[in-house]
Parts: sequence; structure tokens; C-alpha cells
Amino acid sequence: MPTIEEIRGAARGLEERVHRTPVVTSSALNELFGADLVLKAELFQKTGSFKVRGLLTKLLRLSPAQQQRGVITVSAGNAACALAWAARSAGVPATVVMPATAVPVKVAAARADGAAVELVDGDLIAAYERIRDERGLTGVHPFDDEDVITGHGSLGLELLADRPDLGTVMVPVGGGGLISGVAAAVKQLRPEIRVIGIEPEQADVVSRSLAAGEPQKLPTARSVADGLAAPVCGTLTLPLIQQYVDEVVRVSEAALVDATRLVMSRTKLALEPAAAAPVAALLEGRVQPAGVTALVVSGGNLDVTKLTL
Amino acid sequence: MPTIEEIRGAARGLEERVHRTPVVTSSALNELFGADLVLKAELFQKTGSFKVRGLLTKLLRLSPAQQQRGVITVSAGNAACALAWAARSAGVPATVVMPATAVPVKVAAARADGAAVELVDGDLIAAYERIRDERGLTGVHPFDDEDVITGHGSLGLELLADRPDLGTVMVPVGGGGLISGVAAAVKQLRPEIRVIGIEPEQADVVSRSLAAGEPQKLPTARSVADGLAAPVCGTLTLPLIQQYVDEVVRVSEAALVDATRLVMSRTKLALEPAAAAPVAALLEGRVQPAGVTALVVSGGNLDVTKLTL
Repeated sequence: MPTIEEIRGAARGLEERVHRTPVVTSSALNELFGADLVLKAELFQKTGSFKVRGLLTKLLRLSPAQQQRGVITVSAGNAACALAWAARSAGVPATVVMPATAVPVKVAAARADGAAVELVDGDLIAAYERIRDERGLTGVHPFDDEDVITGHGSLGLELLADRPDLGTVMVPVGGGGLISGVAAAVKQLRPEIRVIGIEPEQADVVSRSLAAGEPQKLPTARSVADGLAAPVCGTLTLPLIQQYVDEVVRVSEAALVDATRLVMSRTKLALEPAAAAPVAALLEGRVQPAGVTALVVSGGNLDVTKLTL
Repeated sequence: MPTIEEIRGAARGLEERVHRTPVVTSSALNELFGADLVLKAELFQKTGSFKVRGLLTKLLRLSPAQQQRGVITVSAGNAACALAWAARSAGVPATVVMPATAVPVKVAAARADGAAVELVDGDLIAAYERIRDERGLTGVHPFDDEDVITGHGSLGLELLADRPDLGTVMVPVGGGGLISGVAAAVKQLRPEIRVIGIEPEQADVVSRSLAAGEPQKLPTARSVADGLAAPVCGTLTLPLIQQYVDEVVRVSEAALVDATRLVMSRTKLALEPAAAAPVAALLEGRVQPAGVTALVVSGGNLDVTKLTL
């Protein structure tokens, strides 16, 4: 499991390759919540989400032979675009298995970064395994991978460096990759800082896994926060969350919608609903901000065709 | 008309009171247009638009007696909120005449900043003049005012300081207040930099006024870029535009919509359609970028209820 030295090494590997995203404040949000909030504006990251941190870290750590043969993943969305971008950046060929129903703009984005996109109508995992084995590719899990988690930890280091006065960190939770890395970084250096995860009530696989004591699966996981709708909790992320995360809370779909509009109107950040989960938790009173409270605005891959002008 | 020293004085008066907004770049937009673009992210300004620069400058320059009696303006939107905010900042009582049909959230924002809002069903200008005279208030024009124009010039100074390598500046145009101030600042210091205005085809009062050689009025001015739908050109702004602006081009409604979505998806800035006018001009080929090209992203007061999630 990632040590602080491993996370620091990953952060050094990412320097000059990905953005060191800014933290921003909003006096309007502070007044509204009576809090001292800082927003980690990770929506400005390459490809519009944090995912490139972990995926690029993974690709840079493959053996030269693995890098030469290439990598493969399966994803309908952000991870596909992030892996394609990271692969181009690392000079590694990438194949992405996407459902035939994937949003065309995401397919186009992955192709624009040079990935071979395999559109599959049917069993995605079967297609992924077949292509991986036929072509000798290295499979990359979008979140349940130690290198990926270690790379995500770089975001936690940046938060600590930029705001040494932090009291709380609030992180959106899908399968648990981001919060595992961030919590591992924060708690190893500053165990007194609270780390709280937020997931949709309708896609609460991490909460259920924590309650069961082992990774659970959801029959379906749909949320307006599509970036958080993971149907499975990772086998590597769960023990890290058990060890390092103080609490995981759930938020309603209505709160996610309200929070997205609220943050956009007050901060002018074009965030996606997943990234508004921490504010949704404040709106519903699920978390009491204490001290300087960092909210990780994890991504901005909003479907802008939904903006009716 | 504002000298460079007057603009510098206004900028000093605004320091610590308004934001010095950042310039940001987007490799995605640069690739798309084959250009070297910098975005002046003025949507992060207080109240979400550039208007506080000019209006606060105006309020700070009133006599103590005028400040004590208070100010009044008429507006349905951004200027109402900006005047209310500036008045609170300057400690001046403010009255805002708004149409009864004004968007409730804008009425609430003006009230939240302590302005007395007079909702009028009928002749706004008549109501404005009556209240102004009855109460001895100082009328503040939202753009056709020398102090307002001078204050807006501060944005031009920031651009020159942040990007001394500028070749072109592109500015959204409504009644001409912002571009008058920006062009006066830029051209007095760096006459070789091109300054180009962009207005909607459906609200092209400045283009028509330039063609006629005197301020024109439009019977109606409606655009998806509501911030640019001024039905009149200023009597002070027109001569400044004639003197300092190289060209004013027009863009279609479709290009404004496409540009808003494009900029939001590529930069994650939650801009309003008015602020996307420079990119609309690039999309339609109305302007050829030359050298480093600054686009003024003038505001972010998007109606977020139009975001269907």
C-alpha cells in the first residue's frame, strides 16, 4: 500500500506532465455555509478530471516491454479519455473498450488522443479480456490498482502544501480510487486532518462495502453524478478507506443537482455533478465543516449539450 | 476622455477592492484554432462580471454629499447586481429600478447587497427619473459615463502587464463601455496592438452607429448573449470606439451558442454567452488571430436553471 515516499515519487513523476491545479475560494459559498472552504479546482486538470494522475503514473511504471506492447482498459467515459491522453503522453499504445452506446464526444476524444477504440455491443468485460489476451496488452484497471492509487495521492500532497492550515478534506467517491490515494497522503503526514468521502445514495457501493467489511457489488448504479456510479468497490481501495478515511456519507440526487448549479453560479467553475458531491453533503447537513475545509472539485466533464441556451 | 494616467488612477483605486482576474490558456482551443490565445477570466470578478470595475470607480469619485444621498440606476441584470455590490463596497446607498419581469435571482442578489429595488411595471425610464428627482439621488448610467469607462480601462492595463507579448485583444460589445475603456488603455500605451469588438448580429447597435457616424437606437435588441443586447450606443463610447478600436464584427446567434458550449467544455469556465462572443467570431472566421490574442471572458452570469441535469 502506498507509502508517503511512493506518493512523493509519483508526484515527482507527474511534474511538468500534468497540471498542478489551483485552490480557489468563494466568499459567497463561505457566507452561505458559515465555513472556511477551499476548492481544489481539479476540473482544470488535463482531460478535465483527476484520473490522469493515477493512469499516467501507472503507465510510467510499466516495464519497457509492457510499454511497447501497449495497454487496454474498459470504460464508457472519463477513464477512457484519461487513459488515451496518458498513453499519448507516455508514448504507449492504448486500446479502449467502450460500449456501443458511449457518448460520441468521448469516443472522439479518446480517438483524438490516438487510442484504438473498440466499440462493443454486448459483454464489455469478455471483449476486453479477449482483446487483451490476443494482443498481449497490459490491462489497466481505472481505479483498483496500486500505482493508480499512488498517483492520485499527488493531489493530497498539493492540498497539504497549498493549505497547511487544513482541518478537513472532502472527496467524491465512486469506486474509491481518488479518496484512497488522497487519504493515504493526507493521513500519513497529518493524521489529525479529517478525510470524508461522499457518494450518491443511488451508487453507494463503498458505504455498503464498509458496512459488510468486504467489497460489494451493486446490481445497478445510476446517478446524475455519472462519474461516481461505480457498481463495484475496489479490493485495494477498500482496506485503504478502512484505514485512512474517517467517514463516508451519502447524498441524494436532488442535492447533487442543486449543488452543481449552486457551485457553478457562485464560483463560475463548470464542474460535473460528481465534483459537486462535497457541496451536496454540506447542503444536506451530512458533514459539518470544521476548520479550513477542502472540497475536491474532481472533474468538469459536463455534457454541455444539456445546457439549453 | 480618459488619459492613461486617469486609467492608472482608477486601477489604483480598485486595488484590494476588486479581483485582479487571471489570464488562462487552453491547449485545446489553441489546437482547434491554430492560434495562441489567452483568456482574461473576468467571469471570476466580483458579482461575476467586469461591471464592478467601472461602477465602483464611479461611486468612489462622487462628492461626499452625492455619496451620502445615494445613487440610482435602471437595469434588468448584471448592472443592477454590480451597482448594488459596488455601493455596498463604497458605503453608498443604492436604488435600482428593475422591470417587474426581472429574473428573481438577480432581484434577490441586488437586495442581498443592500440595494433598494424598485420593481416597475411599465415605463422604466420615467420611474427612474421620478425617483431620482424626488430623492435627490445621483443617476449612474451603466456604461455611458466617463468614470465608468475609465474604471473598465483597468482591465486593459492588467492584460498589458500580464501579457506584454499581446498582438490582438478581442472584446465583447454591448453598448460599448467595456471596449471603450480597454481600447483607451491599450492603444494609448501600445498602439500597434489590434483591438477588435464583437457584437451579436441581432444587437448590432455599435456597428450601425459606426456606419452612421452617430449613436443609433435599435427598436428591439434580443440575443442569447443578453449581456450584449443594448438597444443604444453611448454618446461617450462611440467617439472612443471610433478613435481606438480597429474593427467591430458581428456574430450569429448560432455561433454564440456553439462558442459558449465549446469554451465551457474545453476550459471548464462557466461563462455566459456574452463572454463567448470572441470565440464565436473565431468560429465564424470573422477575425483571424494574429500573434498572442487575448479574449476577454467578460462574465459568468449564466442562468444555471437552464442546465438540465
